[in-house]
Amino acid sequence: MKQLVVGVVGAGRIGKLHINNIKDFPNVRVKIVADPFADKLQDWFETSGVEKLVSDYNEIFEDEEVNVLFICSPTDTHLELIEKGVEHNMHVFCEKPISFSQEETRRVYDVVKNSNSKVQIGFNRRFDANFSKVKDYINDGSIGETQLIKISSRDPEAPPMEYVERSGGLFFDMMIHDFDMARFLGGDIEEVYAQGAALINPEITKYEDIDTAIVTLKFKNGAHGVIDNSRQAVYGYDQRAEAFGTKGQAVADNNTDTRVKLFTADLVKEDNPKYFFLERYNEAFIKETKQFFDAISNNQEVSPSFEDGMKAQDLAFAAKKSLESNQPVRLDN
Amino acid sequence: MKQLVVGVVGAGRIGKLHINNIKDFPNVRVKIVADPFADKLQDWFETSGVEKLVSDYNEIFEDEEVNVLFICSPTDTHLELIEKGVEHNMHVFCEKPISFSQEETRRVYDVVKNSNSKVQIGFNRRFDANFSKVKDYINDGSIGETQLIKISSRDPEAPPMEYVERSGGLFFDMMIHDFDMARFLGGDIEEVYAQGAALINPEITKYEDIDTAIVTLKFKNGAHGVIDNSRQAVYGYDQRAEAFGTKGQAVADNNTDTRVKLFTADLVKEDNPKYFFLERYNEAFIKETKQFFDAISNNQEVSPSFEDGMKAQDLAFAAKKSLESNQPVRLDN
Amino acid sequence: MKQLVVGVVGAGRIGKLHINNIKDFPNVRVKIVADPFADKLQDWFETSGVEKLVSDYNEIFEDEEVNVLFICSPTDTHLELIEKGVEHNMHVFCEKPISFSQEETRRVYDVVKNSNSKVQIGFNRRFDANFSKVKDYINDGSIGETQLIKISSRDPEAPPMEYVERSGGLFFDMMIHDFDMARFLGGDIEEVYAQGAALINPEITKYEDIDTAIVTLKFKNGAHGVIDNSRQAVYGYDQRAEAFGTKGQAVADNNTDTRVKLFTADLVKEDNPKYFFLERYNEAFIKETKQFFDAISNNQEVSPSFEDGMKAQDLAFAAKKSLESNQPVRLDN
Amino acid sequence: MKQLVVGVVGAGRIGKLHINNIKDFPNVRVKIVADPFADKLQDWFETSGVEKLVSDYNEIFEDEEVNVLFICSPTDTHLELIEKGVEHNMHVFCEKPISFSQEETRRVYDVVKNSNSKVQIGFNRRFDANFSKVKDYINDGSIGETQLIKISSRDPEAPPMEYVERSGGLFFDMMIHDFDMARFLGGDIEEVYAQGAALINPEITKYEDIDTAIVTLKFKNGAHGVIDNSRQAVYGYDQRAEAFGTKGQAVADNNTDTRVKLFTADLVKEDNPKYFFLERYNEAFIKETKQFFDAISNNQEVSPSFEDGMKAQDLAFAAKKSLESNQPVRLDN
Repeated sequence: MKQLVVGVVGAGRIGKLHINNIKDFPNVRVKIVADPFADKLQDWFETSGVEKLVSDYNEIFEDEEVNVLFICSPTDTHLELIEKGVEHNMHVFCEKPISFSQEETRRVYDVVKNSNSKVQIGFNRRFDANFSKVKDYINDGSIGETQLIKISSRDPEAPPMEYVERSGGLFFDMMIHDFDMARFLGGDIEEVYAQGAALINPEITKYEDIDTAIVTLKFKNGAHGVIDNSRQAVYGYDQRAEAFGTKGQAVADNNTDTRVKLFTADLVKEDNPKYFFLERYNEAFIKETKQFFDAISNNQEVSPSFEDGMKAQDLAFAAKKSLESNQPVRLDN
Repeated sequence: MKQLVVGVVGAGRIGKLHINNIKDFPNVRVKIVADPFADKLQDWFETSGVEKLVSDYNEIFEDEEVNVLFICSPTDTHLELIEKGVEHNMHVFCEKPISFSQEETRRVYDVVKNSNSKVQIGFNRRFDANFSKVKDYINDGSIGETQLIKISSRDPEAPPMEYVERSGGLFFDMMIHDFDMARFLGGDIEEVYAQGAALINPEITKYEDIDTAIVTLKFKNGAHGVIDNSRQAVYGYDQRAEAFGTKGQAVADNNTDTRVKLFTADLVKEDNPKYFFLERYNEAFIKETKQFFDAISNNQEVSPSFEDGMKAQDLAFAAKKSLESNQPVRLDN
Repeated sequence: MKQLVVGVVGAGRIGKLHINNIKDFPNVRVKIVADPFADKLQDWFETSGVEKLVSDYNEIFEDEEVNVLFICSPTDTHLELIEKGVEHNMHVFCEKPISFSQEETRRVYDVVKNSNSKVQIGFNRRFDANFSKVKDYINDGSIGETQLIKISSRDPEAPPMEYVERSGGLFFDMMIHDFDMARFLGGDIEEVYAQGAALINPEITKYEDIDTAIVTLKFKNGAHGVIDNSRQAVYGYDQRAEAFGTKGQAVADNNTDTRVKLFTADLVKEDNPKYFFLERYNEAFIKETKQFFDAISNNQEVSPSFEDGMKAQDLAFAAKKSLESNQPVRLDN
Repeated sequence: MKQLVVGVVGAGRIGKLHINNIKDFPNVRVKIVADPFADKLQDWFETSGVEKLVSDYNEIFEDEEVNVLFICSPTDTHLELIEKGVEHNMHVFCEKPISFSQEETRRVYDVVKNSNSKVQIGFNRRFDANFSKVKDYINDGSIGETQLIKISSRDPEAPPMEYVERSGGLFFDMMIHDFDMARFLGGDIEEVYAQGAALINPEITKYEDIDTAIVTLKFKNGAHGVIDNSRQAVYGYDQRAEAFGTKGQAVADNNTDTRVKLFTADLVKEDNPKYFFLERYNEAFIKETKQFFDAISNNQEVSPSFEDGMKAQDLAFAAKKSLESNQPVRLDN
């Protein structure tokens, strides 16, 4: 089996996470990591198992041995990097969202479609055991035909304003995961209606952003759905989903560290939900990587694909337009 | 303490339920029950503890001893009966919804306001221990300022088409409870957006009705909310609510008959939710009656009041208009 | 159907509870209540619905109309009252335990057996929905052949020392319920081993009693079991049971007032178990009474019978002997 | 920091598991693995990351570089290997139980005590997040002074008879973990009483063994406890513990793969407990190894120590004696 030689662009939190996971796969090596702040990453680099750390990502494309590209850099670099990777016959794993431009995304979509590269998007939640099981119960007929899908997705703490500024806003940065989850569970969506507000920190309105939102969905198959988001659930990372149908319902609750209950005169207490995505989706990050490598090795389809990423992005655009116009917005696909 | 002498209009399922509950209160007697099908109710009457069964409800108003009126007849009779009750200085308990006419309801609202009669509306769910507790956690500051309210409300089986025909439709007959619950938990609402469809039985479209709906809410205090309804949750009566705020979240799950789990090689099984409203809200029906009688005896405000009933009805009208127009609809109050 | 006319001996907490429940049954009236402190019970009597309150229980036996006897007086009066009731052709409901004397109990057992009276013992927990469901899962084969039975039974607070003095001790006063539950779930028992101590309040040792105990059981059918008791579970009345077998396990957890969870930054909190037996076994007390009246009306067997009461008492004697000798003790039946 | 060079005796299921976990630790390498069936292990060896596979464990002791010994061979070899390891100044990790001989164990205990070697015993359950949390709640005073400890421990399927034959019996092979858990949670034990039987497969009696057992415990601090074991819980690996005290109770339930519930007309279903120890204690195995390596590197005490292993073994001997004599047995330590 051909060895997979990985180049990674971006060694921030998510980049490091992927690099650390990749290390454990047999037949895969991380050869080059490119990050503009390479000089500040020396300590990390030394124990990272990575062979080479550079500041210019072009070195990755110049290395003929590299055949797999991980894109963990800011969103505005994604499309260019995907395109370059594909041109260099690399398989590409790209973090979400793909971009902030529907037109550009569509252009690159054509490039990807006409290539032999696998391009997988980092919607890690598809690989979470809970959501996978809900999907299984849908697929095996346990709940019959799906009629309602409900997704709650709330972060434990709001990001700093510097992050908000570059994030593309709640729909692109946060709810994009839930749009993908909605499509994962219920298929394509033809209309959205969004409402929301800045209820946690009014400062966020400076960036024309919100921190609390409810978005309703009409699926092509006739089902209806709703997503709610909050940037700050003080009790922990709240990640739940429900699918309801003609024969029943599957409900995914949060994970906790333990199943211990404490009973005292004052209370009966159990664990809070796992704190944030590193804790909750640890296994999911590994599984998405495994599927990507397996798809390359066995020449299988990747999922979520570039198309999935594009469709989630279309939903984010539609939700933004709906919020601005206070009108439901149809997807024109 | 003055004895409460009750007249009841309508001895269908809900009328019988109230009569049975009233019997257990000290200092209260059910003197007259009026039902157009009185002749078919003789068997029930004999063991009912009721003193007199008549077919014409005017006999109730002619009886000078009767000082409390229970209205358990079809919706189109409610306003007339409330008005007559109030004119006869009776205290009135009326089932939901008040009417299918906003204008008429407003007119009678003025009559009620200018009377000394207590008029309570049958939104029994306010008295359910679970929803009361969520409300307590809101009131005592446990969840901080409310930001999101979510209500799931699903019947175990769809009503017969004859019932649908006279019901006023899903928003008036079913979601009216959830509109009141939303107001109970989050206060007044200024905008709604509704989407829904006939996913269970297309026949319902003959009556311009739907069986599945999602309605989003904007509360006056800035919070956002969402209600979902289905006429058919095959696993039982699904009645849940969540309130999420700056300091936390309160989540009310369904009741079950027991807390027994069965573990076998194939499954781990617990009880289904209680089957329907008689099972789930048995205690709540008794508590709402108790509060009504207590309010009369101690000259206290009733809750939910006629005004609460009117506002829930306004929300049903708004939701209907939203569904028809596919636009969010503002409440003009 | 012949009317049931009830006489009650003892109007303490449990007597009042039964009287209150009996009132709601059609065709049953409470004619006489006898209590030595009758003069202190006038206030209660006036709203009790009871026809006559006397201090001497002989008045019950002198009343030819009384055909049902409820014995809610102290344990040392039970056998005499059962015998008298049976002699007067009354059906008898007697609180637990039957007595503190195995010999006397056996003598009266013969009297009961040779009579036409129904004699039911107040092991109310058999009628609890949770334990009934465990029993159902045993009976319907869901768990296969039973191999292990585990019962936890803990009071929320220790009784006052005056009560302890007359109680017969933990095995007779408290664990007697669990001995019956063990037999209810697993059948007859042939050996017990008891260990225990005074861990809550050493004062209890003055009365040669303990407040914490573990008793193991060998069932005749080969299954094994264990009961644990504590006089003080500060978090509420802890009443659980498990049955484990060749095909699975049924586990009964505690009841709570609501199914609401509160999530905050500090904790995830649910309701404490219901506080004590009045809260937990409210329904069970009604059901045991209903079964007793039904058994009389339809001439059916009562359960738990006098024999069940006697066998639970034998287990209490055996446990006491085991604790004193630190040896397992066989039941010689 | 000095590199840890590991030799492993025994490459069966548990040996392979440890070797696989050790690989992920920095600064640790597995140099030699000795197994009498080395020739059958070639396939595994090639992808194992192990440097050398031999059939004679003496090669480990001849290698001067090896400074850490993992003993994963049958119980009857443990003491000899521990002694040899200590003589060669190795730190030793040994699987449970230590041996089948109290005398021999005591002799080697003195050898260990007088050495500088860390000797840790493989009671992995101390490292399970659930049981650790129960222990935390005891240590931080949440439950006050412990009065009752209950442990349920049941395997999903009985081992083959060839395994039973060499296992030392249920108390040594299976309940030994629970004896250690009891001591972990409640401290030293001064008396046990055991009852049990062959309820699953009578064939086990050929080996003078049982498959179902209940053992009660008296702790030195006055608390009481009970352990139940079954070789076959068809619904999965049942691993629960409870600690009850003056201020409350901590209850550890089983882990499951997901938190998904399926609701249908027939049932409400959740996941079965994780299947067996590899699934349930995966994290615990890693944590016990981490603690062992950390203790070596930082010259800290190991826990569970050789002494802990010896005391668990003493309890197994006492339980066996109790079962045979049907008498409670005191520990003479």
